[in-house]
Amino acid sequence: MTKIAIVYYSGYGHTAKQAEAVHAGAASVAEAKLYRIDANGDLPEADFAALADADAIIYGSPTYMGGPAWQFKKFADASSKPWFGQAWKDKVGAGFTNSASTNGDKGSTIAYFITLAMQHSQIWVGTGVMPSNAKAHGPNDVNWTAGFGGALAISPSDASPDEAPRKGDLETARLLGVRVAEVTKKLRG
Amino acid sequence: MTKIAIVYYSGYGHTAKQAEAVHAGAASVAEAKLYRIDANGDLPEADFAALADADAIIYGSPTYMGGPAWQFKKFADASSKPWFGQAWKDKVGAGFTNSASTNGDKGSTIAYFITLAMQHSQIWVGTGVMPSNAKAHGPNDVNWTAGFGGALAISPSDASPDEAPRKGDLETARLLGVRVAEVTKKLRG
Amino acid sequence: MTKIAIVYYSGYGHTAKQAEAVHAGAASVAEAKLYRIDANGDLPEADFAALADADAIIYGSPTYMGGPAWQFKKFADASSKPWFGQAWKDKVGAGFTNSASTNGDKGSTIAYFITLAMQHSQIWVGTGVMPSNAKAHGPNDVNWTAGFGGALAISPSDASPDEAPRKGDLETARLLGVRVAEVTKKLRG
Amino acid sequence: MTKIAIVYYSGYGHTAKQAEAVHAGAASVAEAKLYRIDANGDLPEADFAALADADAIIYGSPTYMGGPAWQFKKFADASSKPWFGQAWKDKVGAGFTNSASTNGDKGSTIAYFITLAMQHSQIWVGTGVMPSNAKAHGPNDVNWTAGFGGALAISPSDASPDEAPRKGDLETARLLGVRVAEVTKKLRG
Repeated sequence: MTKIAIVYYSGYGHTAKQAEAVHAGAASVAEAKLYRIDANGDLPEADFAALADADAIIYGSPTYMGGPAWQFKKFADASSKPWFGQAWKDKVGAGFTNSASTNGDKGSTIAYFITLAMQHSQIWVGTGVMPSNAKAHGPNDVNWTAGFGGALAISPSDASPDEAPRKGDLETARLLGVRVAEVTKKLRG
Repeated sequence: MTKIAIVYYSGYGHTAKQAEAVHAGAASVAEAKLYRIDANGDLPEADFAALADADAIIYGSPTYMGGPAWQFKKFADASSKPWFGQAWKDKVGAGFTNSASTNGDKGSTIAYFITLAMQHSQIWVGTGVMPSNAKAHGPNDVNWTAGFGGALAISPSDASPDEAPRKGDLETARLLGVRVAEVTKKLRG
Repeated sequence: MTKIAIVYYSGYGHTAKQAEAVHAGAASVAEAKLYRIDANGDLPEADFAALADADAIIYGSPTYMGGPAWQFKKFADASSKPWFGQAWKDKVGAGFTNSASTNGDKGSTIAYFITLAMQHSQIWVGTGVMPSNAKAHGPNDVNWTAGFGGALAISPSDASPDEAPRKGDLETARLLGVRVAEVTKKLRG
Repeated sequence: MTKIAIVYYSGYGHTAKQAEAVHAGAASVAEAKLYRIDANGDLPEADFAALADADAIIYGSPTYMGGPAWQFKKFADASSKPWFGQAWKDKVGAGFTNSASTNGDKGSTIAYFITLAMQHSQIWVGTGVMPSNAKAHGPNDVNWTAGFGGALAISPSDASPDEAPRKGDLETARLLGVRVAEVTKKLRG
């Protein structure tokens, strides 16, 4: 069965909610599993092995200071081991990120995920969802935050993980999971 | 007197409004002039000469298909002539962009402006304004759109240039003009 | 039969040689065709229609002033028409670029191609070739120029298209064509 | 006296050599000091305080997996404290990176440094050195590696820090130090 791995870091819980939405979408189509990087930037050896066995690896992290959290980057640097033998080659890749500000360099985090995936010779899949960008639209509409390369979420600085990411961003995340799983099924059976 | 040049393209008038706000800010501190690239991507030879005489060159363009409009890029390519002799070296640089979607790859346009400015050996100045990113904030608040490397504006797809960019984005643009002029005065007298 | 379209601009002929190498690779696996954007940035209406019919669209342009040539960007902006109806959705995407300098912001051009492809909801495929980065390596070795997200080529400023891109860069381009065609076959039959 | 701080991480010693070259350049013009991030990504509290007192902060890191080393990112994330109060506002910023491959996404690391500096409201200065890009040029020539936004160095995968970065890259690094110090003096006296 097609296996989708979602590997992410979350600092305060907002990105974890986004990860769960991606997971819900992927799990509606294929086998999907969440792998959470810990506060020290570590992922158990067994989880690294599971990633090597997956058909798609989706990356997630909050955007901190204009890029993925250092804990995510520590995971990425540790992936130089599978990189060296190109163990993740031809797996599907995708990404998602959350931060407080409307833009706030979220695009920079997604760009990094793509760069990482390209070094691993993954095949990148974006949101595939048109943005909601008319005057009447707001945070409850799908892809109002308007990410193409990856799913973006805005969680205002004073919003708890119970309040944000909001409806539209969570739906965008869910749809990313669906899309990645569908492409992966076609590509890898 | 310190001279600030603002060179921009505008397709439907929203970016022109943003450019006027940048101009208003810069003109409150120094001599400032707008140079509009035409629909064919051309800028008169005399304007190119004026840019060579400026102390700062600020770039502006809508974000179309994830980057600056081709008309702006035509101008940028034509700047290979001053580039070759590094005629714009040490001038201050800055940038602004507008598009319909909340994110919609505006950051990619600003990143291009920075790349261009670095090839010209310019010195880059961003917004210098903290984002308004709490729950209570909205498009009327300064830097709600949350650009750091350059000023960003959101003009919903069904909003005329009379309606958008909105108050907060125009104020962010104005403040960018002020900041660029102040840094330029310090740097180049 | 799987159809691979390669749409590119070339100013002096170096990028055209790279495009031919990509084409040779793709044509060894699938049906492949080159579409050259003209000096005015135009592509005939019939060619736009052919792109809509392709299974993969590969982008190519020299890197001028830190990004794709304006002629390519004019094509990209004109693609807002198929974008609006997402006519290129789920087509495979890939890219290549050439410039005189060793780095010289080639990565910025590839990043733009990826951004464009993501707006079109394409599925991105990189080189999938490890870099040749030991002391003994040089421009005759595959992926010595070391692109992951796309194929990069160095054509020194005083090298004619007969002299450059050199052997390694042309082979990297050819392998990109092969890889794109193979992934496209798997994905779209 | 004008104070230039160079804060960097080095894994195997190549980036440390590059940092020393930047330092030598800066120290020829102003007061300059190196701050090395340790293997755990930490910088002593006293060093953070010293950065707040500097007129310029230059960032350096190897490029690992397409971005700065996680240790550098941990430092960047810790800089959210001075960021919150914009304590580094108006300091000059610049950057340098080293990796084994010719391109290998070095540009992505420099782009991150710029993003970080923009969040801190720094003023960015690039190399200001034209690339050596003719057929006769090689690694002993200044800016043969061809970075604009920051200084780039290539250290082949089998080259020790005694062998690489090579002459041209070290000179480019030195010139970056000179340039940053000169701009900083003009800007901040």
